[in-house]
Amino acid sequence: MTQMMKNASVDPRELEAYLHEKIPLTRAMGVRVERVEAGGVVLAAPLGANHNHLGTAFGGSLAALATLAGYCVLWVSLGDRGGHIVVKRSEIDYRRPVTGDLRAECRAPSAEALGEFRARYAERGRARLRLEARVTQDGETCVEFAGDFVALR
Amino acid sequence: MTQMMKNASVDPRELEAYLHEKIPLTRAMGVRVERVEAGGVVLAAPLGANHNHLGTAFGGSLAALATLAGYCVLWVSLGDRGGHIVVKRSEIDYRRPVTGDLRAECRAPSAEALGEFRARYAERGRARLRLEARVTQDGETCVEFAGDFVALR
Repeated sequence: MTQMMKNASVDPRELEAYLHEKIPLTRAMGVRVERVEAGGVVLAAPLGANHNHLGTAFGGSLAALATLAGYCVLWVSLGDRGGHIVVKRSEIDYRRPVTGDLRAECRAPSAEALGEFRARYAERGRARLRLEARVTQDGETCVEFAGDFVALR
Repeated sequence: MTQMMKNASVDPRELEAYLHEKIPLTRAMGVRVERVEAGGVVLAAPLGANHNHLGTAFGGSLAALATLAGYCVLWVSLGDRGGHIVVKRSEIDYRRPVTGDLRAECRAPSAEALGEFRARYAERGRARLRLEARVTQDGETCVEFAGDFVALR
């Protein structure tokens, strides 16, 4: 597993199975890993399992999907899914309703930010990183998410 | 339904059935309405359906439960569950891990804030209100949530 995550390109099906096994809500949400690579992660989930009382995407599902995308980026970046990665704080802006399937993208941090994060983690066994994710539909940004994630040894 | 919500005391089972019907993720999460009254709302969900890869409560589930508690307070306050109530923005602080069942409490806003909100909603058909929710365990605050909710006619 560790070896797999150190590769720039990770098998989306393998990461998806990991999520479904370890975080049961991702199964209920129908989370799919669309893309996972060094540049970032894209997760998707069907509207059918994630709508609210208005028939649009439930804010809780959107927050969960964006948070998950952040976790996945850190798992890939750290090269170890066994580590303790937790979200410490996040903000989310719901700019417009999502009327179709949910799709959250989290881009990997810059090489510089990632280098500092890895060095701090190696030195102190604890490092914090801010990640941003977006939910888009038809090219429009519907949701903006920013979260502070912490990796602990 | 409208009549029911205008009462200070609402049947928790009826609100729970409404959530499970309209927002399918709440069923998957096993959300229970523990208390719903003029003073506020308490929602709960079992850890079994809502844990993460570390065996503690998944951040996405905590965010979803806190957001739901906010919705419920507004549904009760507005006396109408048919209205368009959406969350526009929220911040969440994960202060310590939740190691048991999840329990989110959102207190109703002050009578003054609620009065202004209702007046603005009646006048303009749109009003915004900030609500705070907490997830506690054994008397300790584990998660602090604040959200801006909007009611639209």
